[in-house]
Amino acid sequence: MSYELLSKTFYRLAQLGHANALLGWDQQVMMPPKANQARGLALAELSVMSAEILQAPALVEAFAAANDRQDLLADWQHANLREMRLDWQRACAIPKDLVAAEAMATNECEHAWRQMRRDNNWRDFEPLLQTVFDLAKEKAQALRAALQDERGYQSDYDALLDIFDPGTRMKRIDPLFAQLKTELPSLLEQIRARQSSQPPLIRQSQPVAKAKQIELARELMRVLGFDFDAGRLDETGHPFSGGVSEDSRVTARYDEDNVIEGLMAIIHETGHARYEAGLPEAWRHQPVGGSMGMGVHESQSLFFEMQLGRSQVFIDAIAPRVRQYLGADPAFAADNMRRLYTHVEPGLIRVNADEVTYPLHVILRYELERDLIAGTAQVKDIPGRWDEAMHRYLGLNTEGNYRDGPMQDIHWPAGAIGYFPSYTLGAMNAAQLHAALLKAVPKAPELIAELNLEPVFSWLSDNIWHQGRSLSYDDLMVQATGETLNSAHFLAHIRSRYL
Amino acid sequence: MSYELLSKTFYRLAQLGHANALLGWDQQVMMPPKANQARGLALAELSVMSAEILQAPALVEAFAAANDRQDLLADWQHANLREMRLDWQRACAIPKDLVAAEAMATNECEHAWRQMRRDNNWRDFEPLLQTVFDLAKEKAQALRAALQDERGYQSDYDALLDIFDPGTRMKRIDPLFAQLKTELPSLLEQIRARQSSQPPLIRQSQPVAKAKQIELARELMRVLGFDFDAGRLDETGHPFSGGVSEDSRVTARYDEDNVIEGLMAIIHETGHARYEAGLPEAWRHQPVGGSMGMGVHESQSLFFEMQLGRSQVFIDAIAPRVRQYLGADPAFAADNMRRLYTHVEPGLIRVNADEVTYPLHVILRYELERDLIAGTAQVKDIPGRWDEAMHRYLGLNTEGNYRDGPMQDIHWPAGAIGYFPSYTLGAMNAAQLHAALLKAVPKAPELIAELNLEPVFSWLSDNIWHQGRSLSYDDLMVQATGETLNSAHFLAHIRSRYL
Repeated sequence: MSYELLSKTFYRLAQLGHANALLGWDQQVMMPPKANQARGLALAELSVMSAEILQAPALVEAFAAANDRQDLLADWQHANLREMRLDWQRACAIPKDLVAAEAMATNECEHAWRQMRRDNNWRDFEPLLQTVFDLAKEKAQALRAALQDERGYQSDYDALLDIFDPGTRMKRIDPLFAQLKTELPSLLEQIRARQSSQPPLIRQSQPVAKAKQIELARELMRVLGFDFDAGRLDETGHPFSGGVSEDSRVTARYDEDNVIEGLMAIIHETGHARYEAGLPEAWRHQPVGGSMGMGVHESQSLFFEMQLGRSQVFIDAIAPRVRQYLGADPAFAADNMRRLYTHVEPGLIRVNADEVTYPLHVILRYELERDLIAGTAQVKDIPGRWDEAMHRYLGLNTEGNYRDGPMQDIHWPAGAIGYFPSYTLGAMNAAQLHAALLKAVPKAPELIAELNLEPVFSWLSDNIWHQGRSLSYDDLMVQATGETLNSAHFLAHIRSRYL
Repeated sequence: MSYELLSKTFYRLAQLGHANALLGWDQQVMMPPKANQARGLALAELSVMSAEILQAPALVEAFAAANDRQDLLADWQHANLREMRLDWQRACAIPKDLVAAEAMATNECEHAWRQMRRDNNWRDFEPLLQTVFDLAKEKAQALRAALQDERGYQSDYDALLDIFDPGTRMKRIDPLFAQLKTELPSLLEQIRARQSSQPPLIRQSQPVAKAKQIELARELMRVLGFDFDAGRLDETGHPFSGGVSEDSRVTARYDEDNVIEGLMAIIHETGHARYEAGLPEAWRHQPVGGSMGMGVHESQSLFFEMQLGRSQVFIDAIAPRVRQYLGADPAFAADNMRRLYTHVEPGLIRVNADEVTYPLHVILRYELERDLIAGTAQVKDIPGRWDEAMHRYLGLNTEGNYRDGPMQDIHWPAGAIGYFPSYTLGAMNAAQLHAALLKAVPKAPELIAELNLEPVFSWLSDNIWHQGRSLSYDDLMVQATGETLNSAHFLAHIRSRYL
């Protein structure tokens, strides 16, 4: 049966994905430096194999035949066929030499970026980035040509958005971001005025040994339902959550003089990990059993970090354990911790931004990459537009400061164009889910106060994790929250927490 | 060109091998327990993919065409074609359902063995092991039928030996082992008499913290030329050397009350790792650039451990560092360490055996598995024959003690039948290489005394590491030592070190 052949093919791709995920984790966490080239060759070959599997001529007939006999399929198999077809169409849409050219260009640009960022060297970076954007545009055009009717793209950029966050289009983003652009600047002003009238924040006064931080991190991860028999916590330069559903690999960075920020990053990554671990076992190794796009993924990490982790009730609940592991530094008093975790201050760096200013960093990047793909802006315009937008949105100057301006993120040099909006869509999504949770489980705040989090995770599991990729983005949100994604809950959350 | 197609195919197999090696390392060293099933599925799928790549119909024509145009090939490519063909013929010789049946049976038997060994339960183990031997016999027959003429097999068992140590046949082993059986028992008696008249050994009196042991291990590995920018040292239950040429992954076990044995295991595994890391870069990712069979591999680890590591001159040279890292326990005095490292005593367990009694453990196993494959012995006869041979070779009783008798090793339950002889062939090989080194580099002992080991490694590199798999076993040994593998140097080494 054709569906069986497809299912077997995607099972194989999932196993290559397992190898890829773990080799990638090892590369970041364990691998000695001189092994990098050999690892790169191995990972590249696995990618080529995956592409060849997806482009095998036999799949054309199998998809046609499976399509004709959809009556034989259960509901979840219908959804699986839909997801398989999308992966397949995408893989077939991009010419092989474009795939290779993009891999080469992003590899070169990302590698150069690491040094050039340090050197604040925009001049030599610009032509490399130009090539990356040129190829991204070519890819977007190829994807649009192949999938436009079926996926309803209205621009080349839509085809890129759809890679990272399937279902997201400019027509969804534009009104949402417009509301944020209207509301956030004045909210920001009010919040800053309010915070400036409060007593000064108490910063950590003594360094805390890494071993203590790790103990506390593991304790909090356990509170958050992380299973150390099915996952690990390790150290890296940049925290991430990797591995596979059965084997969560969370990483953290430890700063002896600023424990509090690293801790929140761990809570964030634990959210990603629990989502992956909570995906439906019955559909494992099939596309329908995978996670949704980055918007939903980020909604889970931000639910853990922003909705849960930085809430007063959660901070009050964990404060005794923080002091138990880290010592009685006045910075770790519950009230001061809450204020540290909700301190709002415009800054140059996106990854250090608070949840009020963060969307403005994203909107700046969205507007730029959108115009670059549309051809209404050029790579050489980036620094000027960056500086102009930073002035307008956050009142900050980045003139000549490329390092902390348009060269701060890895996304563009790595070719991840169309990715940035997911962060802010995820933040809205998380706020909307949290509002729905409070309706479904009105006692949630009391439960969180007791660190009895199972009912919260159980609701997330039923509504998000356990759905895999069986629903469309809109259906998922409507089923979970009663409405499609919107900015109202996020703005309400900002008002309620900060004003 | 057909050779190019073959070369590309084997490059791909090498990259799957990279993934397999690192995922296997991770499974032993890093992976949380609940991930085991998922990892098993991923590794199994990679194996199936490798098998399918080797069995692709297009290879038949490519091998025929490459064969017809060997005039186009450089010398090393000739050798590569030979090695590619052997891998391919072997993969095609074994029917798919036999591969699957063997994988199932060894998986079941090995899994059961872990518990049954603890329970000393031979009765329930016997039928599982019978199935493993039945399938191994079937596999041996299939391989013999396909390769007998080309590879000169004179028995089914020859086909199994040739898997683990290409080039080794019973007709090589039988006279070598016959000499050991003649010489070793009386040597053993003389050595024990000599050692019993010496003052008592001083055992370590104080535990040594693991962190100290790791520091010393890393220092000694550096002395042995291990590059920590291209490899790692980690902890496992059973020490091994894994990874790939560019990325050596050595593991160790640390016993706070017996530092000295663990240290020698690290020296042993470092030998394996340096061989792999020293393979010729120009032929990387091709069969001709790989390591020789287990006999040569073991010769390198045993060169490091037995010829170098347990030699008086090396122990004298490292003793100050041992005391510097571990403290001044009288057990760590150079003379006492040398005596600990060369203490001879018959015992039940192969992996704990000294280098004098070790070959007798191997010969016992060889004679048994050889007769089991020939059908002149049955699995049910194993305990009786084991006990009889232990009495004859080592004067020890194992009646009813299956745990420390025929159930002590993982090899048979895991299906590695034909593997054991490599250990003793490797020991002979190492002694023969060491004798040749002393002729080629007469100053070697003085250099070792200064821990100036580069000239020693350079000789090994030129003669073994850098040859990859370009030569036959016999040619490799003749080129390196002037003679084919023989037992004279090993027996001379035992006499010279112990009498």
